[in-house]
Amino acid sequence: MSLVVVGSVGYDGVETPHGKVDRVLGGSCTYIALAASFFTRVKVVAVVGDDFAASDAAFLAGRGIDLEGLEHAAGKTFYWAGVYSADMTDRATLVTDLNVSADFSPKLPDSYRWEHYLMLGNMSPALQRTARAQMNEVRFVGGDTMEYWIRDHRDELLASIREWNFLLINDSEARLLAGEHHLRRAAEKIQKMGPQTLVIKRGEYGAILFQGSQHFTVPGFLLEDVFDPTGAGDCFAGGFMGYFAQQGMRMDHGGIDHQLLRRAVIHGSVMASFCCEQFGPERFRTLTHDDIEERYREFRSFTCF
Amino acid sequence: MSLVVVGSVGYDGVETPHGKVDRVLGGSCTYIALAASFFTRVKVVAVVGDDFAASDAAFLAGRGIDLEGLEHAAGKTFYWAGVYSADMTDRATLVTDLNVSADFSPKLPDSYRWEHYLMLGNMSPALQRTARAQMNEVRFVGGDTMEYWIRDHRDELLASIREWNFLLINDSEARLLAGEHHLRRAAEKIQKMGPQTLVIKRGEYGAILFQGSQHFTVPGFLLEDVFDPTGAGDCFAGGFMGYFAQQGMRMDHGGIDHQLLRRAVIHGSVMASFCCEQFGPERFRTLTHDDIEERYREFRSFTCF
Repeated sequence: MSLVVVGSVGYDGVETPHGKVDRVLGGSCTYIALAASFFTRVKVVAVVGDDFAASDAAFLAGRGIDLEGLEHAAGKTFYWAGVYSADMTDRATLVTDLNVSADFSPKLPDSYRWEHYLMLGNMSPALQRTARAQMNEVRFVGGDTMEYWIRDHRDELLASIREWNFLLINDSEARLLAGEHHLRRAAEKIQKMGPQTLVIKRGEYGAILFQGSQHFTVPGFLLEDVFDPTGAGDCFAGGFMGYFAQQGMRMDHGGIDHQLLRRAVIHGSVMASFCCEQFGPERFRTLTHDDIEERYREFRSFTCF
Repeated sequence: MSLVVVGSVGYDGVETPHGKVDRVLGGSCTYIALAASFFTRVKVVAVVGDDFAASDAAFLAGRGIDLEGLEHAAGKTFYWAGVYSADMTDRATLVTDLNVSADFSPKLPDSYRWEHYLMLGNMSPALQRTARAQMNEVRFVGGDTMEYWIRDHRDELLASIREWNFLLINDSEARLLAGEHHLRRAAEKIQKMGPQTLVIKRGEYGAILFQGSQHFTVPGFLLEDVFDPTGAGDCFAGGFMGYFAQQGMRMDHGGIDHQLLRRAVIHGSVMASFCCEQFGPERFRTLTHDDIEERYREFRSFTCF
């Protein structure tokens, strides 16, 4: 089953205590698609400018990613630059040049519209709805968002997530969206807004899956070194949705197979952990299926008793 | 197997967003002993003053706790008061009256000295060594400490923990003790200081067990309401050491049975979670073995995949 991914493709300048890079391939769509490409076929929808390098397109295509929906517009590609704090728990944005993405509106090629799985990267909720509306037979829609949309475009966001099956959000955003500090109660409130499956990210501490009245907690992976956390949340989304699309949706009496979702959460965590091992999406150039399986087993080994 | 617990018994004044209590039974020895008493026989060493209530002594004795080592001195019992922040991740100390504990030096009754398990609550490292030295056949020594001892009494502390098998410490303290931000590397450095078994507490995010080259991560329990987190770390210690003493020390080829330690960590987490459900140690008046078993199963249900 193919996964359609809508989001941003851009270039990033990143500084962490381990070094500094500029104009590395980035954007939510890039990270989601690369992570998901290890599990399923991926079709992307995004916009890039004249300066988008053929080598970057070749990297994505080399991972089997369908680029028919990658629009080329006159102008420069989206650019973001930021610097991480010494402990990498915080980051400051230095530059955000929207460039060609300022006028982006997702247009799904006909060949995308009958797929069953859709992941919407962080962007305007109105654009997320536009993309969602172009899918004819979608069975499972996931989306990401951020504080700005929750705070300043709440009604639009609520209209968008009402149509989602899965929301990926961090803990402070979940509290803001629900107006409730207690995570379990915040999750219940958000589930009533639409997404029955909710993953709350907690940075280095891992994530919690809520589905119906069940929950599942996965701790963060203790990496030897976190080189660059940029894109880790998107790689979680890619691993989660990619694995889910690969396995196909199974139902049990409580809805979607809960054990399948747990394994999807672990695969999301696995891909997020790999993402942090090198700058930008570099780790995905060398990553193998054996690496993924080994880390999956490591997750089991340090969480089970 | 009995567990000897050395630490403080005092009265606490606590204010949290859920309410305010004053002069509730508290202190590291109290919480450790109460939590451990659900698993094994406990013998306490601490000092109290003239104002120590007979009803509090009866509460401890009613849980089968041996009070022969509870010294009664002329003067007032240790008193602490503090107030928690709205999200309960931080607390400010309002009052610390050492009272009779200012002159405390642990004296173990003869009937305690041949026990095999010892847990040293947070106190001066010199006093911890004094207590340790009075045990003749100890097999497993655990201890707790705090930032003050790490920062201002480092040499004494290193001399004390060199003799421990198990150190319980929170993440910021572990980083301070090791001089290393990365938790896995910090753990390796601390293990070289003596304790082969290390549990790093991460507040609401749970804890990580390090033993030799293995580690195990347990997430925090998502309580419906945290009424009062005072004593939760000590209850973790009590659950961990109590379960460990109950089961008896088993060895595998890598040293102490790692699976046994994992289960001890879960029992520690279980007891810490119950502690937070009511003010002070009140929850331990009504807690049953069935409650403990049910929560242990809940931990399994939200961590395994």
